[in-house]
Amino acid sequence: MNFCSDCGAPVALAVPQGDHLPRHVCTACNAIHYSNPKMVVGCVPEWEGRILLCRRAIEPRLGYWTMPAGFMENGETARQGAARETLEESGARVEVGELVTIISVPDISQVHLLFRARMLDAHHETTAESSEVRLFDEAGIPWDDLAFRTVRQTLHHYVEDRRRGVTGLHVIDLGPH
Amino acid sequence: MNFCSDCGAPVALAVPQGDHLPRHVCTACNAIHYSNPKMVVGCVPEWEGRILLCRRAIEPRLGYWTMPAGFMENGETARQGAARETLEESGARVEVGELVTIISVPDISQVHLLFRARMLDAHHETTAESSEVRLFDEAGIPWDDLAFRTVRQTLHHYVEDRRRGVTGLHVIDLGPH
Repeated sequence: MNFCSDCGAPVALAVPQGDHLPRHVCTACNAIHYSNPKMVVGCVPEWEGRILLCRRAIEPRLGYWTMPAGFMENGETARQGAARETLEESGARVEVGELVTIISVPDISQVHLLFRARMLDAHHETTAESSEVRLFDEAGIPWDDLAFRTVRQTLHHYVEDRRRGVTGLHVIDLGPH
Repeated sequence: MNFCSDCGAPVALAVPQGDHLPRHVCTACNAIHYSNPKMVVGCVPEWEGRILLCRRAIEPRLGYWTMPAGFMENGETARQGAARETLEESGARVEVGELVTIISVPDISQVHLLFRARMLDAHHETTAESSEVRLFDEAGIPWDDLAFRTVRQTLHHYVEDRRRGVTGLHVIDLGPH
């Protein structure tokens, strides 16, 4: 941030009164501009025991596999966001269920909320963000070609929990790469 | 947002190519500025069966009671944020445990992550943000003077779960007031 989004004047880093961290403060109108972590919401869609994964058509990690997930938008709930991202990235309509993982990734200031989900029908399709969208049985999950650590952790716990017949919540903190 | 935080030129609302929602886009450098929900992290600190609550010394809801909680900062995990907010607002040092609630509040674009926590010792104190900080036994919880619906829901589930000897996770979506 270089300029105040309210008035257009330059900003400077300063610790506001009563605060404990430097913020971008406007040199003209004194507006304080906060920057906070972002949430990524998504799910593991299941259809007849198989799991829907998407091959990324965009950077980062183009060509690698992920569950449908993306940045939560203003005005929606976490579950609405997970269903919206799933539709956008895979064409699949889902009923969002229980959480699998909540993963803090402090080095990129993100928290991922990743849910279980039931596909409402078998439909899925290639999208602008996914060059391939496919249902995998457990033996076929492309463990060596997953896009992110968050994907690996979530699929691992999803599969383990399903084997044990439970729906656990796993709160995970990821250290730096 | 009126001005581009990168270059200082005016912004306009427009739907970027490949997107589906209007964003603030710079009329000069074409930077796209996203706005996303914020996370509030906090906890229910317990000491010898009693629960630590804070009387708000600041708006909104000045004078009403809350558990310690506040906006998550960049570079921290959700649990680190919950412990930090607890120290800042109540002077109490805690070990953060399991989640009680995850509450989406779409009309103000927030998600609250509220944990159980064990105080490391009995110390707690008035702070800049809390005019009174006090341990309550269950019968004394000031149900009629709680600051927010998120506080009420979380304390309700905390107390109910504790009676039943479980540590449930409650995923809650709050509608408009």
